[in-house]
Amino acid sequence: MASLPEGIQLSKINPKYLHTNSTSHVWAFGAFAELIDNAYDPDVGASSLIIDMQEVGNMPCLIFLDNGAGMDKEKLIKMLSFGFCDKGIYNRRESHKPVGLYGNGFKSGSMRLGKDALVFSRCEKSACVGFLSQTYLEAIGADSIIVPILEYSLPDLKRNNNRQCHNNLEAILQYSEFKSEASLKAELNALKSSVTGTKIIIFNLHRLQSGKGELDFQSDRKDIRCPDPYMEDTTNFDNRPINDTPEYKISLRVYCSILYLRPRMKIIIRGHPVKSKYISKRLCQTEDSKYKPSWMKRNDKPIDIKIGFSCEKERKENYGLMLYHKNRLMRAYERVGYQRQANERGVGVIGVVELDFITPTHNKQDFNRDNHFNSIMAGLAGKLNAYWNSQKETQNIDVGKLPDWTWAQCDNCLMWRRLLPGTDGDSLPKQWFCRMNKDAQYNRCFEDEESDAPVDTPRRKRTNKKRNTEPLSEVR
Amino acid sequence: MASLPEGIQLSKINPKYLHTNSTSHVWAFGAFAELIDNAYDPDVGASSLIIDMQEVGNMPCLIFLDNGAGMDKEKLIKMLSFGFCDKGIYNRRESHKPVGLYGNGFKSGSMRLGKDALVFSRCEKSACVGFLSQTYLEAIGADSIIVPILEYSLPDLKRNNNRQCHNNLEAILQYSEFKSEASLKAELNALKSSVTGTKIIIFNLHRLQSGKGELDFQSDRKDIRCPDPYMEDTTNFDNRPINDTPEYKISLRVYCSILYLRPRMKIIIRGHPVKSKYISKRLCQTEDSKYKPSWMKRNDKPIDIKIGFSCEKERKENYGLMLYHKNRLMRAYERVGYQRQANERGVGVIGVVELDFITPTHNKQDFNRDNHFNSIMAGLAGKLNAYWNSQKETQNIDVGKLPDWTWAQCDNCLMWRRLLPGTDGDSLPKQWFCRMNKDAQYNRCFEDEESDAPVDTPRRKRTNKKRNTEPLSEVR
Repeated sequence: MASLPEGIQLSKINPKYLHTNSTSHVWAFGAFAELIDNAYDPDVGASSLIIDMQEVGNMPCLIFLDNGAGMDKEKLIKMLSFGFCDKGIYNRRESHKPVGLYGNGFKSGSMRLGKDALVFSRCEKSACVGFLSQTYLEAIGADSIIVPILEYSLPDLKRNNNRQCHNNLEAILQYSEFKSEASLKAELNALKSSVTGTKIIIFNLHRLQSGKGELDFQSDRKDIRCPDPYMEDTTNFDNRPINDTPEYKISLRVYCSILYLRPRMKIIIRGHPVKSKYISKRLCQTEDSKYKPSWMKRNDKPIDIKIGFSCEKERKENYGLMLYHKNRLMRAYERVGYQRQANERGVGVIGVVELDFITPTHNKQDFNRDNHFNSIMAGLAGKLNAYWNSQKETQNIDVGKLPDWTWAQCDNCLMWRRLLPGTDGDSLPKQWFCRMNKDAQYNRCFEDEESDAPVDTPRRKRTNKKRNTEPLSEVR
Repeated sequence: MASLPEGIQLSKINPKYLHTNSTSHVWAFGAFAELIDNAYDPDVGASSLIIDMQEVGNMPCLIFLDNGAGMDKEKLIKMLSFGFCDKGIYNRRESHKPVGLYGNGFKSGSMRLGKDALVFSRCEKSACVGFLSQTYLEAIGADSIIVPILEYSLPDLKRNNNRQCHNNLEAILQYSEFKSEASLKAELNALKSSVTGTKIIIFNLHRLQSGKGELDFQSDRKDIRCPDPYMEDTTNFDNRPINDTPEYKISLRVYCSILYLRPRMKIIIRGHPVKSKYISKRLCQTEDSKYKPSWMKRNDKPIDIKIGFSCEKERKENYGLMLYHKNRLMRAYERVGYQRQANERGVGVIGVVELDFITPTHNKQDFNRDNHFNSIMAGLAGKLNAYWNSQKETQNIDVGKLPDWTWAQCDNCLMWRRLLPGTDGDSLPKQWFCRMNKDAQYNRCFEDEESDAPVDTPRRKRTNKKRNTEPLSEVR
């Protein structure tokens, strides 16, 4: 950049702003989604992300460990600053559009979940530690946000030994649970197993007014639960019993299973992989149709919508439109048309739509409800009603034993394969690979996906080398 | 503050973050509300705020001119930085709670409305000019937000003449519409008429995708209109015709008239004062009641709710709950209970509630919809239904010629006076003063308000000296 003119005041950021900025995420899982997007987006391009809880000194911490590209010091500074977003320039493959947009996800997401975050990152040329900590900034009475950072050269994890570096190290050792440089280096060394990657540790997790932690790690040891989610949906608050909260609002595992329209990255929660639901491929009586609102320009592509009956057990509760933006879920089970009436019409019907050209809200948990959005919803409601009317024979019987087609994701290449008719998805082994596909045309990882499959091929190289999904190294 | 340790990286704010941060305000008037709150809050404590449009070089600009306390350089820097909020410490009168909370209103509000903002402020000891400008930061390729500031001593508007000051001046003259220091000083001099005060000029106003400005200054020369507001209310998007937008969403004048539960500050839009609606005092068949949700602690104060029939012409459209937080409107005409049914029950009934203990959303246009909020809404819905059932005789006749009582606000002391029974509010003169009250007990500005009046007395000193509401000085 050009050098700044001398003597002009820098706009400062008060440490309190870290909290201010995080209040846009009312729902805790909305903050998780920001951190998941960061691993998924093309500048990092992780093929797996481990989300876990670890106790450090009897306090639960959240861990996010990805095997993506990692960051050097310059990128880490941007991640710990506000409004720096280079994701566009990494987007070499048109088809993988970054969800991130604003350069604010890490700050708003991590500071929503806890007061302090420690970031370990290893890229091809160096390894770094960064510290974004409200506790530290309060303790030193800072009136600006400063972020202690350490940079180590590879392969030996050497660093400069000057006074500045020492100050950075001191700050981290004094205000984090890591009490020696050796323990920091051990974390950086552990990242070696995936060659490059990033581990984020969030501690001093957010508590409810009652003093209880907002996240529940006990009820389900394979999940992270948010028992008291904020209900942003205002539609039914005076009709619906308060306990009638959809499961994805409460279970991180369920939320992650529908977070991406075309799931690619493997997400492992507390040691157990999330079984992604390729929701548009799990319907039965599926109908593809197109909708073009009158205000759209002549050359604009119409909106694709896939409508069908849900095959899930919860089909009587979880139905409506699934609204995605650049592959990422913005709104789940939005009831439209008949589904808003107090009768059985529309029950069990799911519509899947991706609206890349509509602006998401600031916290990426909805779309801005402008006139364009409202007119699209009205149009899609019509489509859904028409579908329901056309399904007279299906609507009242308990359909949904099997989707029209069963698809499986290869645990090596992460591509999705359509299985032979009649295959029961539930009968598949826990780990599934292309070679297990009985369709000989698509039983090797180097084959492209079927054209009805997601338009974009996965990011991972086609190799049979297994990626690291080893247990986490312990925090010392 | 303590001095910061040497050599630790400062977290930066990219100029692009100014836009990012402003996206929390979807609706333009939500951004106006932030700037109005700033004038109203106790640290500024303005008794009048002028909102206007001025053309500068054929481009419309927005003007916000208050007669509040003004800012010195130190406060101005905080206003142009992020997360600095000293409003609590100015709150000497318990009853006037600040709306501002986060130290982000000016940045998110002004940068939502336009790309650039120039701030003129005059306090008791000095006068200042500050410049928050996306255009300027883009032009110089800044990677951090810097804010040119000039400080002048009083009464002669003298400043330091060093190189740093010169750089600040140059930046403002080159990138704003003010092309000479004399024109800047003229603005600061114009603020003298109200002794202290602040004038904000926002230029390069936001445009819609079509290229048209989003604000309409033409249709009504006494108003600022937002013809295409974002409908945040998702309730009815597939039933309601799209044109059925409540007037307060479109007319700034109407929005300002209900913005505060107990209106105190005079707001003058385009030369014409807003007639504040003291909404809880404009109902008929009013009933006061209390509601205490089961989860509230024993010593917590129950929620006061005032329910009555609207006396407005638009009573068949504008009804529901008016939800306030610390005197500021968060949500208007929220339909609950019977009002959500497709019949006539509950039509025309308004409930007024102030929920200071519930957290507003990040953009202060709603409450966080947590379980506490939802349970309160359910309880209030019950109250409203019960009220409706008790009003069998009133509900079907066209009530609402006159409220139970007529109240008027004195244009001098800003206190509210209850008029004698039978007085028609519409027959009052444009300017009304205590001395015109026929109730001899409350016909002088030094009398307190009636106990049924707002609990807090107004901030202005009781003097008969008229405050400045002269026309704006012109921008040169």
